[in-house]
Amino acid sequence: MLINTVSPHGGDIYKNRVDIDFSANINPYGMPPEARAALEASLDACSAYPDPYCTKLREKIAEAENVPQSSVICGNGAAELIYQFAYALDDARPALIVSPTFCEYEQALDAAGVRCEKYYLKESDGFRLTKEFLRVDFSRYSAVVICSPNNPTGITIEREIIESAAGSGARMLCDFCFLDLTSDPDRYDIPSLTERHPNIFVLKAFTKSYAMAGLRLGYAVCRDGAFLERMSEKAQCWNVSTPAQAAGSAAVGCREWLGRTVSMIAAEREYLARRLDALGITVYPGEANYLMLKARADLARETMRRGIMIRDCSGYDGLGEGYFRIAVRTREENERLIAAVKSIMNSRDTE
Amino acid sequence: MLINTVSPHGGDIYKNRVDIDFSANINPYGMPPEARAALEASLDACSAYPDPYCTKLREKIAEAENVPQSSVICGNGAAELIYQFAYALDDARPALIVSPTFCEYEQALDAAGVRCEKYYLKESDGFRLTKEFLRVDFSRYSAVVICSPNNPTGITIEREIIESAAGSGARMLCDFCFLDLTSDPDRYDIPSLTERHPNIFVLKAFTKSYAMAGLRLGYAVCRDGAFLERMSEKAQCWNVSTPAQAAGSAAVGCREWLGRTVSMIAAEREYLARRLDALGITVYPGEANYLMLKARADLARETMRRGIMIRDCSGYDGLGEGYFRIAVRTREENERLIAAVKSIMNSRDTE
Repeated sequence: MLINTVSPHGGDIYKNRVDIDFSANINPYGMPPEARAALEASLDACSAYPDPYCTKLREKIAEAENVPQSSVICGNGAAELIYQFAYALDDARPALIVSPTFCEYEQALDAAGVRCEKYYLKESDGFRLTKEFLRVDFSRYSAVVICSPNNPTGITIEREIIESAAGSGARMLCDFCFLDLTSDPDRYDIPSLTERHPNIFVLKAFTKSYAMAGLRLGYAVCRDGAFLERMSEKAQCWNVSTPAQAAGSAAVGCREWLGRTVSMIAAEREYLARRLDALGITVYPGEANYLMLKARADLARETMRRGIMIRDCSGYDGLGEGYFRIAVRTREENERLIAAVKSIMNSRDTE
Repeated sequence: MLINTVSPHGGDIYKNRVDIDFSANINPYGMPPEARAALEASLDACSAYPDPYCTKLREKIAEAENVPQSSVICGNGAAELIYQFAYALDDARPALIVSPTFCEYEQALDAAGVRCEKYYLKESDGFRLTKEFLRVDFSRYSAVVICSPNNPTGITIEREIIESAAGSGARMLCDFCFLDLTSDPDRYDIPSLTERHPNIFVLKAFTKSYAMAGLRLGYAVCRDGAFLERMSEKAQCWNVSTPAQAAGSAAVGCREWLGRTVSMIAAEREYLARRLDALGITVYPGEANYLMLKARADLARETMRRGIMIRDCSGYDGLGEGYFRIAVRTREENERLIAAVKSIMNSRDTE
């Protein structure tokens, strides 16, 4: 919970009048009906404590990810797992974060007293991680943090680069929270990746794929059992609520729902990119359910005046003024965004 | 979440066949209907992220507790706030825990790397905290942890003792999670106590009073704003789910529901104590919605064979074999517990 500070994240629809929220990257189709039904059915059980082992949920996740149940840990959103990861490091070496990226890694590592160093992606490389990264002396770090598709750029990282970095033995936090919403969710072969590299910690979320951000549910896959045990000691045992466990257990089997979402998003991403590009806006070739743009510095303020919230990325370390992130939503909503951007661009032209 | 370890707590109804759960101390009347209705109404909003400021919930809590909103912090259950408290200490001195008590304090302090010392309550004092406690040199400690009514004894601590200890300037975690279920919930005058002692951190929970343990919701009142800010930095900002915020906001106004619960519990506590005492069991004079017993060492195993789960307290540091905790439930359920205990006691007599 935030006390007085301003939220560094998108999606704060509680403090603004928002007609359409393009600032949070949530499945525009909403929650799968099976998950919604399971959620409703779980309410009668909410007087009792939740299952501290998340037994059924972990069974379902293990089955869906094709990994052993003992390699699955669940949290109160993926965000909580980032904090538990940081607290469990117990290592005096600094961590290395591939940046610009989601600020929660640095916040969590700061909270745990782990010093952060940055490996900056270059604008000249289109913010793509290149093989130059493999020249890093990974043994200097307690952890290496990567995000693919990266937030906010949407750019994915080649499997080879991840494998090579992991081969160095460094503990890696691989945030794949948006992977299931790309067109190639199996690109990393998570069962084999995690089996060959117990130092890899793969983070995933229900938040985005199944539109249940308000329920708080995330999970991770890692074959280092002692590390997961240490993580579990860093938080209370009832961190995953009964509604989250129930809805998550039902959602994880909704492959068809996810497939339909992925197809729609792929088409709409391409459409949005083409239309915005035609308006003179730089659109980065992201593969996720969001896109990073480079445009006039007041774009977010101007769309907000039109009831549309987009994510201003000027605060990201490694970016600056003029960068924005937009979610990919339904055609009707995307058209409204495009219309707003068009009117903003025209108003500049006539000024 | 627990990975492989055995839960050190009561209430693990997921691994046992349980007809009646006397091991968790939850309002036997269940959730107030207003809270249940608000919970159901919140489900449509669960696709979006929760309000990171818990704005409405904190407003309602501040109003009910008659304290400023800025002094209220909410968590994913009171348990999460215990961990955040421990992580926020940032102090090399050890912590002092008045024991026997709830083991979560020590686990959280351990997780945060804070060494724990114990101040043991004496069986000869009936596990009551006496003024001898005030001879402690509190300046040696980063935090002093007390629980009133204490878990598992149910014994409350005199206000004078809390005030005097707080007067030393030591940071105090005062866990009052069960206070609202005693017959005198206003005994500590929390608005004035916390105003005069910004070093006091008062913990409360919705879990027990409003039977929403599965939703995970707790809060604390503290007038040290900088400390609350530090606590909030030790966890993700979306830790309190949308359903928990909605149900909690509605529950906090259900004074009548709570009043009826408190009256029923007071009567049933007295009834249970009298009946168990007549069966030759030592019942400690607790004031909460649970009672601590001293009885034959196999009592919990034997009640479990009869489908009734009670809390074996032999693992509590400062207790030992033969101590148990039972929740105070409805007359019908209490009668079943009494009948089970009677049959167990008789079976011993005839062995």
